[in-house]
Amino acid sequence: MDNLQAITKPVAKEVEEFNSLFATILRGHNPDFQSMIDFISGKNGKRIRPLITLLSAGLCGKVNQKSIDYALIIELLHTTTLIHDDVVDNTMERRSRPSVNAKYDNRVAVLLGDYILALAITRAVMAQNLNIMEIIARVARFLADGELTQLINSREIILDETRYFNVIRNKTAVLIAACGEMGAISVGASPETREILRQTGENIGLCFQLRDDIFDYFESGDIGKPTGNDIREGKITLPLLYALKTAPKAKSEEMFRLIETKNYTPENIKLLTAFARENGGIEYAERKMREIKAQIVALLGGFPASEAKNSMLQLVDYVIEREK
Amino acid sequence: MDNLQAITKPVAKEVEEFNSLFATILRGHNPDFQSMIDFISGKNGKRIRPLITLLSAGLCGKVNQKSIDYALIIELLHTTTLIHDDVVDNTMERRSRPSVNAKYDNRVAVLLGDYILALAITRAVMAQNLNIMEIIARVARFLADGELTQLINSREIILDETRYFNVIRNKTAVLIAACGEMGAISVGASPETREILRQTGENIGLCFQLRDDIFDYFESGDIGKPTGNDIREGKITLPLLYALKTAPKAKSEEMFRLIETKNYTPENIKLLTAFARENGGIEYAERKMREIKAQIVALLGGFPASEAKNSMLQLVDYVIEREK
Repeated sequence: MDNLQAITKPVAKEVEEFNSLFATILRGHNPDFQSMIDFISGKNGKRIRPLITLLSAGLCGKVNQKSIDYALIIELLHTTTLIHDDVVDNTMERRSRPSVNAKYDNRVAVLLGDYILALAITRAVMAQNLNIMEIIARVARFLADGELTQLINSREIILDETRYFNVIRNKTAVLIAACGEMGAISVGASPETREILRQTGENIGLCFQLRDDIFDYFESGDIGKPTGNDIREGKITLPLLYALKTAPKAKSEEMFRLIETKNYTPENIKLLTAFARENGGIEYAERKMREIKAQIVALLGGFPASEAKNSMLQLVDYVIEREK
Repeated sequence: MDNLQAITKPVAKEVEEFNSLFATILRGHNPDFQSMIDFISGKNGKRIRPLITLLSAGLCGKVNQKSIDYALIIELLHTTTLIHDDVVDNTMERRSRPSVNAKYDNRVAVLLGDYILALAITRAVMAQNLNIMEIIARVARFLADGELTQLINSREIILDETRYFNVIRNKTAVLIAACGEMGAISVGASPETREILRQTGENIGLCFQLRDDIFDYFESGDIGKPTGNDIREGKITLPLLYALKTAPKAKSEEMFRLIETKNYTPENIKLLTAFARENGGIEYAERKMREIKAQIVALLGGFPASEAKNSMLQLVDYVIEREK
């Protein structure tokens, strides 16, 4: 049993039902493009978001059908953003398989993403809860805002930590915040509890993205996946941002010039990632994660001991320490 | 006063308010990409959809704030599909100005389309009417379905009129059907009346797309815009479809081969459009529009005489006869 499986235990039955319902939702569409939907359906990720939704529900009540329904809406919304983001970033691989744009083309990916988003909206309407629909509308806005801001910022070199955190909040943390909030709503939690779980989710989302961003500075052991993808796309994430601001001026100016000229040869990417690593960028980002974790622990302090609470805390460690 | 202005008269005040509110909705966003939204905001189309929404409301009651609110949701949804469709079709010009993908790039267009869609969903949620949200979710699904089916079908040569009508129903008519239905809902019309106006809208939508498709077989007088854009993208619309099915076998097989080999030189495009024109394709599509118009007239037969009714009937003629 790996870590994630152990963490899932308190909601294992519900996760199973989620998996089965998610597959069902993706069946029976227009035969002209069902095969494309099957392709998405076969690409299961770690499904961290549904897990957070269900654990949040479990933290403050008895997980129920609504908890699962809300998790489905969130995973559909997440799926659509992955498909569109892969077009935007020209990513060719997703979850160890070709991305939709790689397998088909950008045009299919744009429309298939739109179609899955429409399924998410449909499920949100079916929930017949105005609150849920408001959250979904807001999250959809923030997701597009975050990705768009990141794309635009990648044209200039902005060394502003606040802006970095705003982007990762919008593009990643807001959706995970919705997991916490919607999980709480599904079991009728009080507004105060909803807010606590919303903030918990948001903080987990920040850690999730920080860890994701750190990966880009290391070679992946198993497949020798090239590092520096973010840098190549003009995304300066926290480790490099920190190093550029704090390293000796001569060195950081040299790195600045590499970025400015977008001269992203394999050698220069190596120089930039090594520069970030050697100037405390990784440690700084890890420190940030530990600070955020402390906030999460404080937020969850008021909940009585439970399996779900244990799992949620273990999940935070998993998100921070995971190796892929 | 041109035709459209005369048609607008019974709801002129509301159209004006619509225009002003639409501009307001598109203001005050993230400064990082407000200029991109301004660019969209400046590209006003004919705004046929809000007009149909308002006239539908006027046909069965007194146009009110809800009618305008619903028109705004529809125009936002329409805007997002234009932006994404231009990416999918690689269209460089829209409303005599560069498309978003041409002005910026495909990546911006994907995300900006997502953002505008999120605004549409937000407005739909603000309407606090489950019915409206259901319609919007359904329309979003059909729009993506229609575009995706068309894209996939463009890879093979399908001479099936039913399939052609299904595609134009999904990609165009379903949204205009929603204009009729939502206009009726906005003034509290009965379910029967809603259904009549939904069907009216759907039929107007079919005519709208048929006329749009016919344009592609003629050179545009004013700017000498090249014809055959649809054909070049593998879209066989009704005039060519009809000609391929009914022209003498030898000739249509020759044309079939041109399409099969995708040998779309300017000369071959000329051959194909001339073939459709010379073999009754245009007349056939125009006959279809007249048949649909007769259905619309029958659908509206039960409404008492009114300015709005007059305008709606004139609008049908405008849609069928317009020259751009």
